[in-house]
Amino acid sequence: MIILVDLDDVLADFDGGFYKEWKRRHPDKFIVPPDKRTKFYLREEMPDEYKDLITEIIITEGFIESLPEIEGGKQAIYQMEEMGYNVFICTSPFRNYKYCVTEKYKWVEIHLGKDWVNKLILTNDKTLVNGNYLIDDKPEITGCVIPRWEHILYDRSYNRHIKEKRRLNWNNWKEIISPNNK
Amino acid sequence: MIILVDLDDVLADFDGGFYKEWKRRHPDKFIVPPDKRTKFYLREEMPDEYKDLITEIIITEGFIESLPEIEGGKQAIYQMEEMGYNVFICTSPFRNYKYCVTEKYKWVEIHLGKDWVNKLILTNDKTLVNGNYLIDDKPEITGCVIPRWEHILYDRSYNRHIKEKRRLNWNNWKEIISPNNK
Repeated sequence: MIILVDLDDVLADFDGGFYKEWKRRHPDKFIVPPDKRTKFYLREEMPDEYKDLITEIIITEGFIESLPEIEGGKQAIYQMEEMGYNVFICTSPFRNYKYCVTEKYKWVEIHLGKDWVNKLILTNDKTLVNGNYLIDDKPEITGCVIPRWEHILYDRSYNRHIKEKRRLNWNNWKEIISPNNK
Repeated sequence: MIILVDLDDVLADFDGGFYKEWKRRHPDKFIVPPDKRTKFYLREEMPDEYKDLITEIIITEGFIESLPEIEGGKQAIYQMEEMGYNVFICTSPFRNYKYCVTEKYKWVEIHLGKDWVNKLILTNDKTLVNGNYLIDDKPEITGCVIPRWEHILYDRSYNRHIKEKRRLNWNNWKEIISPNNK
């Protein structure tokens, strides 16, 4: 059994890291806090005039590398491996890849350990990657083929309008991901 | 139809770039020239005492980015796309990813164009990626699942002992990759 796990906002706290940095750089400019978000893309959540400011933050050297962990994520994937599942981290880089790609590798090495670097898959089209499950916070995942995996939503406020997919978080994942629960 | 194409020694002339740099740095030390190679890994081809010198070159900043093109490769994948095939570049990074991963993206942007950056897939396990064909110079490609693609060897001296797989180069690929020739 192969489980693909997304990185940003599933294992790495992208949204939390961004929010903190936004508050530091622009304390006078209101943005929606992580738990109140209703749109997947930050740029869709914020006023148009903030777009460049958003991009400035996320492409800054060190931003990706310094993202905090989502609590429980690391423990969950370690446990999955102990249970005999084969876990891979499946993530899409930004179009501006200058710091992003290397820092995703660094993040995985620092937070998950050196062995996990070999389990990192970078692709803009996740439908091409085989697995039984893809745990991902993005509401809809499209690509050039019909994927073999079941998309299980990592529960976030901005994907709660999706009713037809199963969802989990790192507190209840064992109720969802189990060999008897497919 | 999805065609996965390897990067090093298929589109980018890794071996040629390495050989040139080796001659420059170590003109007194013989190594097997690219067209006489019999082993896939450089380190298996060379005396043990050269191993660290080999690594030094390939992890140098700028080495991957400055690799020349394999003649005909770019034209071949452009033509495949024109013929309606969906081409993705599927490549495995070094364990030492410091410069390698970003430079693979840069190489693709510089040599193939910005749109191709979205068609780059980085993975250490290519069996997980779906496609009809994988064009790759590595003699045997293993991973955690039985791949869906047919491995077509990109013809190199060090994979000629493999007889049971079809092979191609950028001069004759149209004879091998065709909708009528599966």
